[in-house]
Amino acid sequence: MSARLTLIGAGPGDAELITVKGLKALQRADVVLYDDLVAPELPDYAMPGIPRYYVGKRAGRVSFSQDEINQLAVDMAFHYGHVVRLKGGDPFVFGRGYEEYRYAKERGVACEIIQGVSSCIAVPASQGIPVTSRGVSESFWVITGTTRKGELSEDLKLAVRSNATVVVLMGLKKLRELSELYILNGKAEMPVAVIQDGTRLNEQCVIGKMAEIVSKAEERQLGCPAVIVIGNVVKLHPDYTRRICETVKDSCYFPEV
Amino acid sequence: MSARLTLIGAGPGDAELITVKGLKALQRADVVLYDDLVAPELPDYAMPGIPRYYVGKRAGRVSFSQDEINQLAVDMAFHYGHVVRLKGGDPFVFGRGYEEYRYAKERGVACEIIQGVSSCIAVPASQGIPVTSRGVSESFWVITGTTRKGELSEDLKLAVRSNATVVVLMGLKKLRELSELYILNGKAEMPVAVIQDGTRLNEQCVIGKMAEIVSKAEERQLGCPAVIVIGNVVKLHPDYTRRICETVKDSCYFPEV
Repeated sequence: MSARLTLIGAGPGDAELITVKGLKALQRADVVLYDDLVAPELPDYAMPGIPRYYVGKRAGRVSFSQDEINQLAVDMAFHYGHVVRLKGGDPFVFGRGYEEYRYAKERGVACEIIQGVSSCIAVPASQGIPVTSRGVSESFWVITGTTRKGELSEDLKLAVRSNATVVVLMGLKKLRELSELYILNGKAEMPVAVIQDGTRLNEQCVIGKMAEIVSKAEERQLGCPAVIVIGNVVKLHPDYTRRICETVKDSCYFPEV
Repeated sequence: MSARLTLIGAGPGDAELITVKGLKALQRADVVLYDDLVAPELPDYAMPGIPRYYVGKRAGRVSFSQDEINQLAVDMAFHYGHVVRLKGGDPFVFGRGYEEYRYAKERGVACEIIQGVSSCIAVPASQGIPVTSRGVSESFWVITGTTRKGELSEDLKLAVRSNATVVVLMGLKKLRELSELYILNGKAEMPVAVIQDGTRLNEQCVIGKMAEIVSKAEERQLGCPAVIVIGNVVKLHPDYTRRICETVKDSCYFPEV
């Protein structure tokens, strides 16, 4: 038995947005560690009878620190063999996947990364919003809303002056600060979309101008997880002109295949 | 028979990095249109006997303009039924996927997007480089190297001054200009990785400082497709200290599962 860790990007929420490679590795797991944002049915695709542990950090359930998760993965690799670590989105986009990878690697655990579909691109797409589009945006900038210090990322202060589509992950609690930053920079009219539970059945979306987005998001009582998309690409959403929408995906854009 | 178009992100190169959802839709195709950068085995996962058309834009093969591809997808949807459009990476990250989607939608074709793993994140990860990492980078900015005008994107002039990890897609031909821009901005020491054929078996990587990257990439004769990653996250690559590497993935980072 050799100690192995496979970090798998479980995708943005829709269980079928895991990759084929990820699913195959999951089926070869001896033990599964999974996070909050992983589709709840995914851990069940592992072999029957193997242990599965929830190691999320949400309120209301047993909580693990990042250090504990790092150590747990290593301990389990030496105890069980092949640890599969299911992480929401892509393992190397925020979420501290690199730290888990490096910690295990330095302790003699063979590590593999299986990339995933990141919510930064997939969630806007789920609303029909491309992060880039010829003639509208030739770049996109993905920024965390939750920095170590708890403050708005310094990068946002430059991003507000750029022509990039700006995508903020884990930023819903900073929406007011974000909106104020754009208004201060003369961009009160900037189109913005806030998308909750993107690619899930309960996906919700609020669209508006920066100056009005806080009140609109509050009115719809949007919660986490949410992706914030800022830029002229938001105008490509067909509901932009009426500025607010709440969609069940299938009724809006994406007929069932 | 109803006219339908499904744009599927085929992922960055490794065929198994297509999503389960994408693979399932592919298996329900009546006709497949695919690009250059799609893994060559993927079109074969469609039902036997259905037509498959290569519609890439590379030299040396029959070439289609974007307008022709847009129209072809619509014509085929009305002729065959379900058109699956396989695109490299994610369909809404560059590559004009949104234009195909919109063109078809406006002509009465039911359209669906199935998101994919984008090379902007997955190719650096394939070299063990995370686009973000706590304490190193709290954002990443993805920019095309190939603008409509053929010039370096204006966004790069701001990006060079940011703390973001900068990822340039389709930019190998602009590497010298890019390097000069960084040097002019006092960033000759900035770490950079150029990764060719990321996630494929023939993946190659050159790592160095901005001031030396052009000669190193030329020396290794790197070609397209290539992803350029710029920022301190590149220092996390174990070969950064020796500054140049050419790896076959399995021998370097990723033991076979």
